[in-house]
Amino acid sequence: MMATDTTTAVLLLSCQDQKGLVAATSDFIYRNDGNIVHADQHVDAEAGLFLQRIEWELGGFRIERDGLADAFRPIAEKFGMQWELHFSDYVPRVAIFVSKLEHCLSDLLVRQRMGEFGAEVPLVISNHPDLQQFVEALGPEYHLYPITKETKAEQEKKQIELLEAQKIDLVVLARYMQILTGQFVRHFQNRIINIHHSFLPAFPGGRPYHQAHERGVKIIGATSHYATEELDQGPIIEQDVVRVSHRDSVQDLIRKGKDLEKVVLARAVSLHLSHRILVYGNKTVVFD
Amino acid sequence: MMATDTTTAVLLLSCQDQKGLVAATSDFIYRNDGNIVHADQHVDAEAGLFLQRIEWELGGFRIERDGLADAFRPIAEKFGMQWELHFSDYVPRVAIFVSKLEHCLSDLLVRQRMGEFGAEVPLVISNHPDLQQFVEALGPEYHLYPITKETKAEQEKKQIELLEAQKIDLVVLARYMQILTGQFVRHFQNRIINIHHSFLPAFPGGRPYHQAHERGVKIIGATSHYATEELDQGPIIEQDVVRVSHRDSVQDLIRKGKDLEKVVLARAVSLHLSHRILVYGNKTVVFD
Amino acid sequence: MMATDTTTAVLLLSCQDQKGLVAATSDFIYRNDGNIVHADQHVDAEAGLFLQRIEWELGGFRIERDGLADAFRPIAEKFGMQWELHFSDYVPRVAIFVSKLEHCLSDLLVRQRMGEFGAEVPLVISNHPDLQQFVEALGPEYHLYPITKETKAEQEKKQIELLEAQKIDLVVLARYMQILTGQFVRHFQNRIINIHHSFLPAFPGGRPYHQAHERGVKIIGATSHYATEELDQGPIIEQDVVRVSHRDSVQDLIRKGKDLEKVVLARAVSLHLSHRILVYGNKTVVFD
Amino acid sequence: MMATDTTTAVLLLSCQDQKGLVAATSDFIYRNDGNIVHADQHVDAEAGLFLQRIEWELGGFRIERDGLADAFRPIAEKFGMQWELHFSDYVPRVAIFVSKLEHCLSDLLVRQRMGEFGAEVPLVISNHPDLQQFVEALGPEYHLYPITKETKAEQEKKQIELLEAQKIDLVVLARYMQILTGQFVRHFQNRIINIHHSFLPAFPGGRPYHQAHERGVKIIGATSHYATEELDQGPIIEQDVVRVSHRDSVQDLIRKGKDLEKVVLARAVSLHLSHRILVYGNKTVVFD
Repeated sequence: MMATDTTTAVLLLSCQDQKGLVAATSDFIYRNDGNIVHADQHVDAEAGLFLQRIEWELGGFRIERDGLADAFRPIAEKFGMQWELHFSDYVPRVAIFVSKLEHCLSDLLVRQRMGEFGAEVPLVISNHPDLQQFVEALGPEYHLYPITKETKAEQEKKQIELLEAQKIDLVVLARYMQILTGQFVRHFQNRIINIHHSFLPAFPGGRPYHQAHERGVKIIGATSHYATEELDQGPIIEQDVVRVSHRDSVQDLIRKGKDLEKVVLARAVSLHLSHRILVYGNKTVVFD
Repeated sequence: MMATDTTTAVLLLSCQDQKGLVAATSDFIYRNDGNIVHADQHVDAEAGLFLQRIEWELGGFRIERDGLADAFRPIAEKFGMQWELHFSDYVPRVAIFVSKLEHCLSDLLVRQRMGEFGAEVPLVISNHPDLQQFVEALGPEYHLYPITKETKAEQEKKQIELLEAQKIDLVVLARYMQILTGQFVRHFQNRIINIHHSFLPAFPGGRPYHQAHERGVKIIGATSHYATEELDQGPIIEQDVVRVSHRDSVQDLIRKGKDLEKVVLARAVSLHLSHRILVYGNKTVVFD
Repeated sequence: MMATDTTTAVLLLSCQDQKGLVAATSDFIYRNDGNIVHADQHVDAEAGLFLQRIEWELGGFRIERDGLADAFRPIAEKFGMQWELHFSDYVPRVAIFVSKLEHCLSDLLVRQRMGEFGAEVPLVISNHPDLQQFVEALGPEYHLYPITKETKAEQEKKQIELLEAQKIDLVVLARYMQILTGQFVRHFQNRIINIHHSFLPAFPGGRPYHQAHERGVKIIGATSHYATEELDQGPIIEQDVVRVSHRDSVQDLIRKGKDLEKVVLARAVSLHLSHRILVYGNKTVVFD
Repeated sequence: MMATDTTTAVLLLSCQDQKGLVAATSDFIYRNDGNIVHADQHVDAEAGLFLQRIEWELGGFRIERDGLADAFRPIAEKFGMQWELHFSDYVPRVAIFVSKLEHCLSDLLVRQRMGEFGAEVPLVISNHPDLQQFVEALGPEYHLYPITKETKAEQEKKQIELLEAQKIDLVVLARYMQILTGQFVRHFQNRIINIHHSFLPAFPGGRPYHQAHERGVKIIGATSHYATEELDQGPIIEQDVVRVSHRDSVQDLIRKGKDLEKVVLARAVSLHLSHRILVYGNKTVVFD
């Protein structure tokens, strides 16, 4: 695709903190006539780690996009950087996993319809047939993979094949009520976003609204995070909360929580797709 | 004290849910020419429990305050109610426990100065001498009880004697860094309010801000609750949260959290002193 | 329809504040063996006004639903009450008005699909054809009424005819970019809910996000209210806000605001449909 | 004062947006062996304006602090920057203005006591004598300037003399119920922080809680801003809100609002004193 003037490049990088890092990347862009539209950095003093996101316009930039990675590599090597380079005109491909509860799924599909993500959502994967008609009416293919304890490994293998064949960049677990195997999670490391219906680390695991009601909390929450092998322990991307009271039954918590889950998941997907998240250790830096 | 026209009576009651409860109490007040200024009730359907707060003006009420409890007793006995009767012109007496961190203490003392609580705070108890001068400048006595593992039981006994001698109604733990014994807690059941510097049940126990930073949460909180024998497990009265990010160091979390702790503790104290809290099981009903 | 045991009756009433009101309604229900599931009242001391919502189960209630209004009337007349009686098994009919922006519309339709409202949405009315296919794919009819200055009165008349023919109980303006005439508004008094994309009374009228950006506010909001003849001046039902910063362009405000608008509008619709709102003067009492 | 290793320098600058700005400042610091601890910038695309805050450690920096301004000047001139240079070991001097309401004042004094501001508060100025004893017990001098229409100009002149004599850097209006003249405001341009007890631009001027109650809003707010000649129209620094309902009387709004006002004002003071605010046009950029 031809880069237009408004196409941008995004560098996400991290390395040991040291002097001259901000100067090195900004100078690289400046020397080549780039116009920086966003630059943000973070130093984790304890870990001695420097993390940066820098975005600049390709219009007028002296280095061709095909040569950009090669041109930057010497700087990256000098400072020992881990880095990713993205272009804003690439259209990422997203697969949504869902079971029976549709609120997160439909919210994502409506946002997708409105162009909020700048992405494609070619397919939805489910372990239940219930939402097929609804999904197909809104566009994506619906792939059904019923799961039992016995078939899980086999079905996941087929899912991975489909996701690879469809060149999927991001898997979104929109209230998908199956625990993924370590094999699946490792295959898409830092590319699976899950929504958990509690304010983690409070109430991990099953039935968090029931747990919250039982404990008598006055605020409930939702958490989006990258899936890791340990359930509900992955790096947190976004959280939000809503006030509840003794008047709220478990059903009320579930209803109020749905609105949280939708927004918290959508924000995480949006941040990921615009390359605003850096994972380090078990945490995220979110350059918003 | 003479009841003025604006003095009110407050009934807090709970019993097995059954027909006629709302009618019985409202009719009792109506028949005696009382003017209800606040009435709220809650039914816990699972527990089959009815809980109510009802407040009415004593001015013009046909029953003398001294005879009020006796007059209501037959209704209470008919329905098997647990109940408390309070009068708004009683001035409750509060003792504040503190260690070295002063933000909650000073917030409470300033509110007290401004008349927010309608209470008296005759004394502050501490296990450290640091805040003596500050407290005394604002009015209350300062009682120092240094605590070691060996002396705790003995010192608590003396504290209880002092609190009883001073007719203290409510003990507020304003970042008091000692774990109270079961004996102390039982002595003042549902009359000790603690502030915990996390969004319980997340991060109970020590150093919750360090735990929150380590986990990489995007929101932190504070929780006020009645102290029970199990640390940080008592009935939650109030919670609030504030958004944080990767930019926030542990020190930033501590600083942001202080503003939460102050408000969440003050709200709980205020609700308790205006008889708006009913404890049942390990939960609270807050009639606000 | 046969009332099942879980069908409830809801009384919404208001009158001059006077002694015996709570006793009178609760006694009426109790004497007829009703089980109250929700009761809440409010006294506006300045206005000397008493407002109440009371809900009880029809199962076991001694008065037939057809005779209920007649049975209650003497009490209402004694106290000079304005009152409404609703039954929970009535399924209200909702019409959604929309122009081109679809986020509120699609949010409402998805919630409707999930059964959140306990209502029917037989039709959508628009002054633009853009959303016809999308709406019809989700079920409702799509009625197009292009509006110009010259045709507005005429088109509104046709809309009213359609709404009456379809027995519509509630009109929801889901970012409908036409100002309704006084005639239309009076026809559906307190039955038209609008969403305004600002924190009223800040930024009434057009382009509120542009106004907010220009003023440099740090928080933006959305407001749902009943439409009245004066634009954006009707009784407020619900508001919510989100934090913004200098980093947010007008486009960012619009994007963030969309998530607010959806939730604030949906909450108002839900509260109205469950008979939890009483309008008095230019305010609402929300019994939630 | 000797700069210790942890003393930092802060540059706050703004200029027309152009290529090479980030590179120029970061290179200046890097070439002189500075270690950047915070760097943030903002581009207002509409205004074509670049704004930056950059902070680095003086320990090990090759330029003496006395020569730093001269060393940076050529860069500033090349790009046409407006700029300020601050050192973290300078202790700013703050004067608090108050009338009779003490909640903001006492909150600021308690924070000052706890060292939250890194500042000195040598004096409080009031037009009423009420708070003298309380203020003096906490340390600052109390200067009384009763104000009438006739004496205002004269009294303000004396206030300015005192503030100048005391080398006051920042004036904080902590619910000071006098409107300052244009002369006073111009004298301390962008150095007077006011707290207004509403969510501006809603409810400017007098009695905002009464206005909010009258309008029936569901959320109230507070706003801190720099004072300008037009009342309540200055650049907004910080805002926050709290939910209210029909149950809240004007007195309840006032009480809930107090907690907002305290926090919103304290945050603004803190941001100003750590040189995190840049004013441009009638807006602020807050580098937090």
